[in-house]
Amino acid sequence: MSLTNIFSDVPSALRDELVQVLLTKADFRIERIVSHGHASPEGFWYDQEQNEWVLLLKGAAKLRFENDLVEMKSGDFINIPAHRRHRVEWTTPDEPAIWLAVFYE
Amino acid sequence: MSLTNIFSDVPSALRDELVQVLLTKADFRIERIVSHGHASPEGFWYDQEQNEWVLLLKGAAKLRFENDLVEMKSGDFINIPAHRRHRVEWTTPDEPAIWLAVFYE
Repeated sequence: MSLTNIFSDVPSALRDELVQVLLTKADFRIERIVSHGHASPEGFWYDQEQNEWVLLLKGAAKLRFENDLVEMKSGDFINIPAHRRHRVEWTTPDEPAIWLAVFYE
Repeated sequence: MSLTNIFSDVPSALRDELVQVLLTKADFRIERIVSHGHASPEGFWYDQEQNEWVLLLKGAAKLRFENDLVEMKSGDFINIPAHRRHRVEWTTPDEPAIWLAVFYE
């Protein structure tokens, strides 16, 4: 049985967010996302076809929704319905933020 | 937007494992499982209808498969195919082991 660690192989510097698919099935996929001080570009909003259940494993982050700012710390999770517009306002600059995201229909 | 923390509301003592469904859909569900020194009963083997992708978030554990013993620490994840017989041999007795499990078809 093969074992992988979600906190391993985190690059020390990243120009862009690092997205790695851990499991993919017809109706959902599991991804690891590593942010290193990344935020969404000015004016950019995610408007996703799929729902996203996302757990912040390490670091801290601020997610902006159209009427809400959500501050997340390690262990916090949130369910983002499809087409709920949001952006990543801020992630910890001094350590990587590591997310586990489950995208589903 | 509603935020929950995966590490919160962990009872200090548990007679049995605590299983909480975080999200359930037609083809998969996400659960939080809290073990507190629990192991599978002597001679008991899980033989599950669904596949299980499981991430150990906190604590340590030993999973036994028929031909393998897998020692897991925080952050390790493993994909257990349906009907792959396994048992929980050991979990940390001095702190809760917290798992995130995704069961899927």
